[in-house]
Amino acid sequence: MSFEKVAIIGLGLIGGSIGLAVRQDMPGVATSGYDADPKVRERARERQLADVIADNPAEAVEGADLVILCVPVGAMCKAAKAIAPGLKEGCVISDVGSSKRSITEALVKALPGRTIIPAHPVAGTEHSGPDAGFATLFHQRWCIVTPPEDAPEDKVAELVDFWEALGAMVETMDAAHHDRVLAVTSHIPHLIAYTIVGTASDLEEVTRSEVIKYSAGGFRDFTRIAASDPTMWRDVFLNNKDAVLEMLDVFLTDLALMREAIRAGDGEMMHDTFSRTRAIRRSIVALGQDDPRPDFGREHD
Amino acid sequence: MSFEKVAIIGLGLIGGSIGLAVRQDMPGVATSGYDADPKVRERARERQLADVIADNPAEAVEGADLVILCVPVGAMCKAAKAIAPGLKEGCVISDVGSSKRSITEALVKALPGRTIIPAHPVAGTEHSGPDAGFATLFHQRWCIVTPPEDAPEDKVAELVDFWEALGAMVETMDAAHHDRVLAVTSHIPHLIAYTIVGTASDLEEVTRSEVIKYSAGGFRDFTRIAASDPTMWRDVFLNNKDAVLEMLDVFLTDLALMREAIRAGDGEMMHDTFSRTRAIRRSIVALGQDDPRPDFGREHD
Repeated sequence: MSFEKVAIIGLGLIGGSIGLAVRQDMPGVATSGYDADPKVRERARERQLADVIADNPAEAVEGADLVILCVPVGAMCKAAKAIAPGLKEGCVISDVGSSKRSITEALVKALPGRTIIPAHPVAGTEHSGPDAGFATLFHQRWCIVTPPEDAPEDKVAELVDFWEALGAMVETMDAAHHDRVLAVTSHIPHLIAYTIVGTASDLEEVTRSEVIKYSAGGFRDFTRIAASDPTMWRDVFLNNKDAVLEMLDVFLTDLALMREAIRAGDGEMMHDTFSRTRAIRRSIVALGQDDPRPDFGREHD
Repeated sequence: MSFEKVAIIGLGLIGGSIGLAVRQDMPGVATSGYDADPKVRERARERQLADVIADNPAEAVEGADLVILCVPVGAMCKAAKAIAPGLKEGCVISDVGSSKRSITEALVKALPGRTIIPAHPVAGTEHSGPDAGFATLFHQRWCIVTPPEDAPEDKVAELVDFWEALGAMVETMDAAHHDRVLAVTSHIPHLIAYTIVGTASDLEEVTRSEVIKYSAGGFRDFTRIAASDPTMWRDVFLNNKDAVLEMLDVFLTDLALMREAIRAGDGEMMHDTFSRTRAIRRSIVALGQDDPRPDFGREHD
C-alpha cells in the first residue's frame, strides 16, 4: 500500500467503517481521525475507529498521505479549510460524498494547488453515527472515483488500490456522469421514500397506527431508507439539484402514464411494465449487489 | 379448531404457505388443494402443500368446512363459480386477496346464499408460485378480516381463530376501509416501485448496467417489490382503482412540494421532513413488523 498514514475527517457510518476496514485489511497502515462533535470523538476512541483520535482537524491530518473527508456534502468546504494548516506536502485529499460536481468545485476552491481526487463508495445502511460503522461495509460494493482532468495518474491509481484493498470494486468516471447515475440509483429512491413515508404519516383517513400495523404489505421497505441521516440527505439534494430534478421529471412522466393506465383500466400496459421489472432484480442479485434470499433475508420467525 | 377440513384453491406463495402452516400448526385438520395449472398441481404434490391435491376445483372443496380462494383478484369470480358444485352445506368461503370491496361483491354474486367472509393476510415475499410458500409466513403478521354485514358472528369468530392458529394477529374492519388502508401501506408502494424500476431501465443517459452496478445506493430496495407477481398486481390496481388513485394524488401533491423545495434550495423543509420519517421506522421495528437488524439483515460479506 502506497499510503502509510490515512486521516479520516468525520467519524460516522462511512468514516468509522473506513477506519475499522483499514485496521483489518491493511496491516501497517496508520490511521488518525477527527470529528467536529466531541461526543462522537469520545465514542470513536472507545470503539477505536482510528489509531489516534485528534481533538482538532489540522492535527488529525499531520503526516497523512491520504486524507478522506467523510462529512455531509454541505460541510465539505468548511472541513477542507479546517484541515489546510496541517496538510503534508503531496498528500492526496479525497472524500466519500454522494454528489461529485459540487464537492470537486468546493475542494478545489478551498485547497488550491492540492491533489484532490473525489470518490464515492456506493455502500451504507440506514444507521448513522460512530456506532454504525463496520469493517466489511465496502466488500463487494462499488466505489466510484471521479478524478479531475489534471489529477496525477499515479495518485489516482493509488486511491483505486486503496479502495480495492478495502474489498470494493472501483470504477472511474467524470463527476457530471456520476451525479446523473447516482440521481437514478440513489437520490431519487431516497427522495421518493422520504416523501411517501411523510405522506403516510399525515393522512387523515388512515391512522398512523394502521400504517405501522399493515406496513408488511410493502410500505416498511420504504421506511428503511427514509430512516437515513437527514442532514446528509438534505445536502445531497441541495448539491445535486440539476440531475435530481431532471431524473425526477422522467419518473413523474412515467408515473402519470401509470396513473392513466389505472384510471382507464388498461391491464395490458400494467402487466407489461410489471413483467419487465423482474429482470433487473435478477441481474442485481446475480451480480452480488443484493442478498439472494427472499425478502432480503428478513427473519420469518 | 372448528374447521375439520380446509380446501385451498390456488397453490402459489399464499395458498402453499397456508397448506404447510395448517399441517404444522393444526394437527388433525385435513387439507385439500387445487390449482388451475397442472404443473403447479404436480409441484404441489411433490412439496405436499396439502394432504390431497385434486384435479378439479369442485372435487377439492368436497367436505371442506372452510374454503380459501388464493387466486389473483381478477380470477376470484371464475374460481368461485368452479367450486360451487362441490361446496358443502354451511361451509365458510374466504379468500386472501389484496382488495376487499370488489372481491366481496364478486363472491356474493357468484355464490348466492353462501357464507362469505373475505380476509387478507398482510404477508408475503417477492417470490411466487408453488415453491415460494413456507409454514411461518404468517407468524407475527396481521390478517385483516372484512365480514359483510350479514356474516354470522360465530363463523367470523371461527375464521379469526383459524388465522390466529397460523400465528397471525387479526383485525376486523369493513372492506372499504381496508381498501384505503392497503392502498397506502401496500398498493402505492408497489406502484411506485414498479414505476421507478421501469424508469431506470429505460433511461438513455444512464445504462442498465450502471443502474445494476450502483443499485446499492437505494435503488435495489425498490427492485424487490417490483419483482412481485405481475398478474396479481395488475388485478389489484384494476380492482382497487378508487382508493389507489385517491392516495396516489395525495402522494403526488407531496412530491410536487418536495420538488419545489429542491428547486428553491429550501434545506429547512427537507430537513424537517427527513427527520420526521425516522420515527415511523422505529415504531414498525418496535412492533415486530420489520427486522431490527441494519439493512434488513442483509449479509455484508
